[in-house]
Amino acid sequence: MNTERPIGIFDSGIGGLTVVKAIQAALPHEQIIYFGDTARVPYGPKSQVTIRKYAYDDVAILMRHQPKMIIVACNTVSALALDVVEKASGAIPVIGVLKAGAELAVKATKNNHIGVIGTQATVSSNAYACAIHQLNPEIEVVSKACPLFVPLAEEGFIDHPATKLIAREYLTDINKHGIDTLVLGCTHYPILRRVIEETIGHGIRIIDSAEAVALRTHQLLTESGELNHHRRTTAPHLLVSDLPQKFSVIYQLFMNSELPDVELVEV
Amino acid sequence: MNTERPIGIFDSGIGGLTVVKAIQAALPHEQIIYFGDTARVPYGPKSQVTIRKYAYDDVAILMRHQPKMIIVACNTVSALALDVVEKASGAIPVIGVLKAGAELAVKATKNNHIGVIGTQATVSSNAYACAIHQLNPEIEVVSKACPLFVPLAEEGFIDHPATKLIAREYLTDINKHGIDTLVLGCTHYPILRRVIEETIGHGIRIIDSAEAVALRTHQLLTESGELNHHRRTTAPHLLVSDLPQKFSVIYQLFMNSELPDVELVEV
Repeated sequence: MNTERPIGIFDSGIGGLTVVKAIQAALPHEQIIYFGDTARVPYGPKSQVTIRKYAYDDVAILMRHQPKMIIVACNTVSALALDVVEKASGAIPVIGVLKAGAELAVKATKNNHIGVIGTQATVSSNAYACAIHQLNPEIEVVSKACPLFVPLAEEGFIDHPATKLIAREYLTDINKHGIDTLVLGCTHYPILRRVIEETIGHGIRIIDSAEAVALRTHQLLTESGELNHHRRTTAPHLLVSDLPQKFSVIYQLFMNSELPDVELVEV
Repeated sequence: MNTERPIGIFDSGIGGLTVVKAIQAALPHEQIIYFGDTARVPYGPKSQVTIRKYAYDDVAILMRHQPKMIIVACNTVSALALDVVEKASGAIPVIGVLKAGAELAVKATKNNHIGVIGTQATVSSNAYACAIHQLNPEIEVVSKACPLFVPLAEEGFIDHPATKLIAREYLTDINKHGIDTLVLGCTHYPILRRVIEETIGHGIRIIDSAEAVALRTHQLLTESGELNHHRRTTAPHLLVSDLPQKFSVIYQLFMNSELPDVELVEV
């Protein structure tokens, strides 16, 4: 039965764990298989050719486990290689964080001014602005790359004064544009959600792409009748291409739970 | 003639450009060929097995250009895979930043208390402490991982108040141990030298591993009679495994000169 098959999620590294957490919260009975390409992280600063090659590999690894759908937790892949994922995954549905986040942001904005923050590659690709404009060409989108947010999150500098200074530096410009909605266009950023929220001001609606994906996944599986209602909740099945130091510390930071068994796969 | 052959330098990414700069300053007539494995950077957080595999590939790429020696600008490779480099490079000499830095630090210290800062992998490997203790077992070594220094350097946050806060956070502990010498055990760190120097206090001698390598290279080529005295100075021959965005900005930041032609190689 399709309902029993796992949901496959992949990311360039461990950032996609925020998506795993959101899916677990929204769909507690689903089996999740997660691949983090920790040997080749980060994808963000790499060229499009390289990112597309990596995306193909990542899908191939998940496909061995016969997922009922694939979630692209990586914003970079969602922006630059979603077609590669769709081709490599055959007939099963694919959800990318980017489109899910864009859709939720478009629904949320009242004044048609949306801000997007992400890695350099995501922002340079202009993919969020394109996805938003496909839904509503009248919306004004202002974007800002925040390259230090990922290492700050991984270092656990959640409440650090330096993080606040850097957030202020990154977000001041974006704040001048009168946005009412801000998309966290990188899976690491929910870890810094509080400092981002405080810096940008509490009147602005934060769109967490991970939550957006979880909503969309729930909707899609409900429509297709593939939602799993009965399975006992278990830890996600974790695949990584390299087992980095501090992995269990970062896992706890992202998931608020102990690291389960991790399987190493070659890319 | 051996003198005409290039000096091969490699690093996991662009950090090793600080070594290129130091070599150019000390040995202005040498042809330099530099390989930066920008597709697979960073090596720091990866496992030893992966790092050793990558080191082998990196040397193979340089060997195609028949270098007269190989400089391992990557501290991670110097710490965990120098034997791989020596094996793969055959009869030509190999200099690693780590040993060169350790030697210079041991010469510099008066009170036998040395501090070492680097990436998580370099510090966890304990390789600087081992190299220092091989030269003088009486020296006390205190180490500290500073994972945010690399992204701060690449973001150009040279003088930023956040960088000062983070430097204070990282260096306060190390400062309590009464060190008189501090090794910059990561090739990116010379970019942040001033803020590190200000934070640690001006009484402490900073050992820049890039300068240490340049000194050692000069000595070695002088001894073997392979020093090039006559060649016209040219830009380094740059090879990268991926051409990242902002590469030319970062090149300027590291080298204070315009980006020359860059050759893309597959890994």
